[in-house]
Amino acid sequence: MKAAFYAGNRTIKVGECRPVQPGPGEVQIRVSHCGVCGTDLHIFHGAMDKRVKMPAILGHEMSGTIEMVGAEVEEWSAGDRVTVMPLDPCGACPACKAGHSHICQKLTFIGIDSPGALQAIWTVPAKTLLRLPEKLSLAHGALIEPLAVACHDVRLGAIQPGEHVIVIGGGPIGILVALVAKHAGGNVVISEVNPFRLDLAARLGLETVNPSALDLVKFVEERTGGAGADAVFEVSGSKAGAAIMPHLLRTRGRIIVVAIFAQPAEIDLFRFFWREIKLQGARVYEREDFAQAIEIAASGKVPLDALVTETTSLDHLGESFHKMESGGDCMKILIDCAL
Amino acid sequence: MKAAFYAGNRTIKVGECRPVQPGPGEVQIRVSHCGVCGTDLHIFHGAMDKRVKMPAILGHEMSGTIEMVGAEVEEWSAGDRVTVMPLDPCGACPACKAGHSHICQKLTFIGIDSPGALQAIWTVPAKTLLRLPEKLSLAHGALIEPLAVACHDVRLGAIQPGEHVIVIGGGPIGILVALVAKHAGGNVVISEVNPFRLDLAARLGLETVNPSALDLVKFVEERTGGAGADAVFEVSGSKAGAAIMPHLLRTRGRIIVVAIFAQPAEIDLFRFFWREIKLQGARVYEREDFAQAIEIAASGKVPLDALVTETTSLDHLGESFHKMESGGDCMKILIDCAL
Repeated sequence: MKAAFYAGNRTIKVGECRPVQPGPGEVQIRVSHCGVCGTDLHIFHGAMDKRVKMPAILGHEMSGTIEMVGAEVEEWSAGDRVTVMPLDPCGACPACKAGHSHICQKLTFIGIDSPGALQAIWTVPAKTLLRLPEKLSLAHGALIEPLAVACHDVRLGAIQPGEHVIVIGGGPIGILVALVAKHAGGNVVISEVNPFRLDLAARLGLETVNPSALDLVKFVEERTGGAGADAVFEVSGSKAGAAIMPHLLRTRGRIIVVAIFAQPAEIDLFRFFWREIKLQGARVYEREDFAQAIEIAASGKVPLDALVTETTSLDHLGESFHKMESGGDCMKILIDCAL
Repeated sequence: MKAAFYAGNRTIKVGECRPVQPGPGEVQIRVSHCGVCGTDLHIFHGAMDKRVKMPAILGHEMSGTIEMVGAEVEEWSAGDRVTVMPLDPCGACPACKAGHSHICQKLTFIGIDSPGALQAIWTVPAKTLLRLPEKLSLAHGALIEPLAVACHDVRLGAIQPGEHVIVIGGGPIGILVALVAKHAGGNVVISEVNPFRLDLAARLGLETVNPSALDLVKFVEERTGGAGADAVFEVSGSKAGAAIMPHLLRTRGRIIVVAIFAQPAEIDLFRFFWREIKLQGARVYEREDFAQAIEIAASGKVPLDALVTETTSLDHLGESFHKMESGGDCMKILIDCAL
């Protein structure tokens, strides 16, 4: 069967691979679709070469159909349509013991620390599975993982109906956060500079602003009657985003840091003091977030179709990375692993 | 009567002043003691010259006895022993309407934006008063305001019995935060570099570490079985404190930013993401914090005596500022305004 391998040095090699037989408690999945994530691009750029074992099969945003179940697997059968929550916590570290196993201090992230879904057939622990409802397409099923990230972020942000929400950064996760925050009843505005992303967000029914074309602080003040926003999601990972975020908030407003900041950023802590602003980091998801993501996607109430700008095959994974890094006209690229 | 005036250019002038007659809703207080605060030092350095109206009477950490009450004041009488919560919110801004009047967007801080307590007789709105119990000395009464800051910080930090708490910075507020957090049941360690402060904190029964003499991150990891602290109070306002704070915490641990950072600081937002760390700014206090401060001080369960390293007169206010800025052997200096 076919698989795509990251071989280091910005190189993807597509080749043959033997399916892994499911051991006890494992299932073998015929992968339908797998999304390409910003983290995969980060790996492609070599930034995580110390962590991944090359040649590495990446991919963790997937959907598929169970091909075979291993011993001791009782809840699942061949033919079941599933997605995978790609976390394998140790169960023994202080984080796991505190009930934070999704951010286990020795977390195995499946698809980074172990083989991922960018192959025709993938074998994973059955405990990672979630069932996809019949009315949810397998293409949309591959969006559940990033949608679960957004559900987690919005849940930690505790967005209430009528609240003013600013999302800094309109990439795939920023747009999903905005859609979920809007679904929760928030008055959401995305701040983004890239014209393609601005246009795509608008087509999804989201309000947008371009902070290079207006004074974002002033815009938010006017919009909120001088109070400031209730919540800001920092999804850009940019110095500009980190600098402006506390200046957009009301007293005791909330910042949720979703982006992965590669470098420390300059933060105006005075503003946190002055307005008693709260900030929380948010990473991956918990099982309830996956369940909510499936519910939201299946409800059809959140537009997901326009988010997928291209569906291609494993043979074109390398090209997909090049498209993503050019910052050009793409949002979410799906790989159809059956092609 | 006597008053001390900040006249700009690092100058304090002591002179005569006429007592202000209390208007409707106001009371006139014979000031007993007034503490000198870091903010007063900041003003003395000229950093807030745009905000204070010179010649300015500073001082907002005080105790005293009511001399006279104005019209429409029913709850208070001459002779009552009181302290003042020196906040005068506008009542109309979005922060006030949201119930955050202590951080009103147009807050008048009495003693900065209007005349303070460093004078023999002071007139303030009756609504700012809190009663001091008989068993609390007037000298300790002047510590209620900074103790209320610490009560506010610890309340926002939601310290639970048995939690591991690190206080970065062992000045007057840092020590009070540590004492209140310990009173709340926390296992508290103060991180401080100044030998005088380390020694004083130890004399108050607090555990201390000197981060220039050991690896603070490693110390906290070992102390907490690899988990990290539950809460960190950043009270140093230093770049080093801002840099290290997220590395001291367990997953979903809390940082309370108490210090006033004059400049933006470099913060490792990745660590906030990675461990889902929370941060909250904490400023001044609410009425319940003042009430708790009075209760704690009156209980005698928190050692306050050793915190006061000197009691002097209005005539020596300028010298007190010089002592404080030298970073020398002083902690809290009280001015006895009757001298």
